Amino acid sequence: MNTNNTRITLAHGEGARATRELITNRILTRFDNEHLRQLSDATQLDVASDRIAMTTDSFVVSPMIFPGGDIGSMAVYGTVNDLAVSGAVPRWLSLALIIEEGLELSILDKILDSIASAAERCGVVIVTGDTKVVPRGAADGIFINTTGIGELNSSVIAGPRSIRAGDLLIVSGPIGRHGIAVLSAREELALEPPPQSDSAPLHNSVACLRKNVGEAVKAIRDATRGGVSAVLHEWATECNLTMQLDETRIPITDDVRGASELLGLDPLYIANEGTMVIAVDPAAEAEALAALRSIPESHNAVVIGRVTARKVSPVTIQRMLGVEQPVDEPTGALLPRIC
Amino acid sequence: MNTNNTRITLAHGEGARATRELITNRILTRFDNEHLRQLSDATQLDVASDRIAMTTDSFVVSPMIFPGGDIGSMAVYGTVNDLAVSGAVPRWLSLALIIEEGLELSILDKILDSIASAAERCGVVIVTGDTKVVPRGAADGIFINTTGIGELNSSVIAGPRSIRAGDLLIVSGPIGRHGIAVLSAREELALEPPPQSDSAPLHNSVACLRKNVGEAVKAIRDATRGGVSAVLHEWATECNLTMQLDETRIPITDDVRGASELLGLDPLYIANEGTMVIAVDPAAEAEALAALRSIPESHNAVVIGRVTARKVSPVTIQRMLGVEQPVDEPTGALLPRIC
Repeated sequence: MNTNNTRITLAHGEGARATRELITNRILTRFDNEHLRQLSDATQLDVASDRIAMTTDSFVVSPMIFPGGDIGSMAVYGTVNDLAVSGAVPRWLSLALIIEEGLELSILDKILDSIASAAERCGVVIVTGDTKVVPRGAADGIFINTTGIGELNSSVIAGPRSIRAGDLLIVSGPIGRHGIAVLSAREELALEPPPQSDSAPLHNSVACLRKNVGEAVKAIRDATRGGVSAVLHEWATECNLTMQLDETRIPITDDVRGASELLGLDPLYIANEGTMVIAVDPAAEAEALAALRSIPESHNAVVIGRVTARKVSPVTIQRMLGVEQPVDEPTGALLPRIC
Repeated sequence: MNTNNTRITLAHGEGARATRELITNRILTRFDNEHLRQLSDATQLDVASDRIAMTTDSFVVSPMIFPGGDIGSMAVYGTVNDLAVSGAVPRWLSLALIIEEGLELSILDKILDSIASAAERCGVVIVTGDTKVVPRGAADGIFINTTGIGELNSSVIAGPRSIRAGDLLIVSGPIGRHGIAVLSAREELALEPPPQSDSAPLHNSVACLRKNVGEAVKAIRDATRGGVSAVLHEWATECNLTMQLDETRIPITDDVRGASELLGLDPLYIANEGTMVIAVDPAAEAEALAALRSIPESHNAVVIGRVTARKVSPVTIQRMLGVEQPVDEPTGALLPRIC
C-alpha cells in the first residue's frame, strides 16, 4: 500500500500543487460556494447589519472522533454557539486546519463531512480557509480553528450585569455530557452504552427564547470549559450577587453520574458543548421554559436555581438534605484536550 | 526553580482561574481595548461599510523566533497582507493560540509583545481571542491563528482575470528572504550575518499604489507559500496568458542567492512574508513604481517581467544569455513550517 495516497504528507501543506489538489478535491467538493471558489486571499462579504459579532475558537479535542460528535462538528457548533449566546445570527465561518503528517485521509474526509453537515444544520457558510501540515510529532492528528461572524439585527442581550436577585437560572439540558464522553473514549472506560457528548448547535434555542421572552432574558452563556460552575462564577462576579443552585433540580444523566463518580469529578465543572445557562426574570419562567422545550436541542431545559443577595460565596448549592454549601471556582481540573 | 512559575502548564488551558490569570496578566495588559476587556463569547463591531473582507491563516513556523521576525508579528502581518492585497482596509483581528505545555513564559511574553507592536504598526485591533494548551508532545511550541476583517470602502481590485498581454509584473522587493531566513535559522547554517526575513505589512504600500494608479492595478498578491512562481502560475491559469520573467531584473540579495545555492533551492519558489507581486497596465509603470518606492516596505519595487500571449508554458524566464525557459509550477518543496 502506498501510504502517500492514503495519508496526509508534507507536500499537502506546501501551498503548491498537492495543496491545491487537497483543496479542490476534498474541501471545495464539500463546501462549494461563491466565496471559497475564488480561492482568493480574502473573501468579500455583504453585511446587512451595521453591527457584527466576531468570535474565534481553536479545537484540539482528543480523540478526534468520540461518541456523539467529532472535532469537525464541534468546531462549527462551538463557534455558532458563541455567536448565538451573544445575540447574533451566525452567518459566516472561516476554517483553518493544522494537520499532522500521516493523518489518514479517510479520517480527514470524515471530519470534513461532519463540518459540512454541521454548517448546513446551522445555516452558516464557510467562506475562507487555510490548511497547514506539520511534520509527524509536531501536532496530534488535527487542530481546527473556526472564526465566526454573525449579524446583530435585534437588541443586544443585556448581559450578566443586568442580573437581579430573584432571577432564575436555567440550563438547557443535562450537564457534563461532553467532558464525560470524551474522557470515557480517551481513557477507554468501556462503559456500555458509551456516554454521548451533548455537542449541538444552540442558535435555534436562543432565537426562540429571545423571540418569546425578549428583554426578560438577562444573560446566556454556553457552559464549555469549566462547566456550569465557571459560568456562574463569572456571572456572580459581574453582578455581585450569589448564584444559588438546587442540587435536586440539576439534570444529570445516569451515565454521567456514574462516570463522574468513577473518575472523581463533579459534573458542575465538566465541559459541555451544546448546553447553556440562562438567567431570566422570574415572571418569564413559564414562557422561557416553553420556548426552550419547543426546540430539540433544549427540550430538557429546567430551572436549576436562583439568584440571591450576595452571600459569602458567589455560588452555592442547596444539598438534598437542605444544607447550603459553597461551590468553589474551578481552578483547572487538568482535563486537557476536552475541546 | 519552580517550573510551574516560568512555563505554561495544562492548567493555563483549563478555562478556569489559571486561564483567567494568563489572559488578564499577559493578554489584556498588552492588548487592552473595549472589545477584549469584555471577555465575552463574541465581540460586537460597528461596521462602517456594507462590504467586508474576511481571511484566516494559521502560523506554525519553526523556529518561533528567527532573524527579521517571529511567529507573532508574522501572524499579524500575514493576515493584514491578505486583507490588503484584496483591496480591504484591515480593521480587526482575532487571535487564537495553541500552546504546548512547557513553553517558557518568557518566550510567550516575547511573542505577545511582538503581536502587540505589529498590530499597532498596522492599525488593527485584536478584538477576540482563544487560548488552548495541549500536553507536551501534542504540539511544538506555539501555533497561532489570526482571522482578519477589513472594510471594503473603495473599488475592488479587478483581479487576475483582468490581466492583458503587455501588462507589467512588479515585485515589491527582493524575493526569497523569509524562507531562507527561517531555513538558515532552523538548519543552523551559521551564515554571517544571518539572512533576515522580509516579514512586514504591505497595507500602506497597497493603499499608496491604489491611490496613485487606481484602475491600472490589475492584480496584487503576496508571494507566500510557493513563492513568486506560485502566484504567477495562478495568474497565468486565470487569465490564460503567459507570465514572462526577465532573470536579470529579479531582485535577489547576495545572502539569499548564496544560501539558495547552498541548499539547492530556486528563490522563485521560496516563501516571502512581506513581498508582493503586482500586475499593472504598462501606461502606469512610472507612477506605480514611484508610489511603491515612496513606502518603506516596498522601496525596492522593480519590474521583473511582462505578460505575453499564451505560449506553451504559463510562466517563462528569459535567462541572462537570452534563452527563454519554462518555469515549472511548484510541486511542494518539502519545506515544512516556513509560515
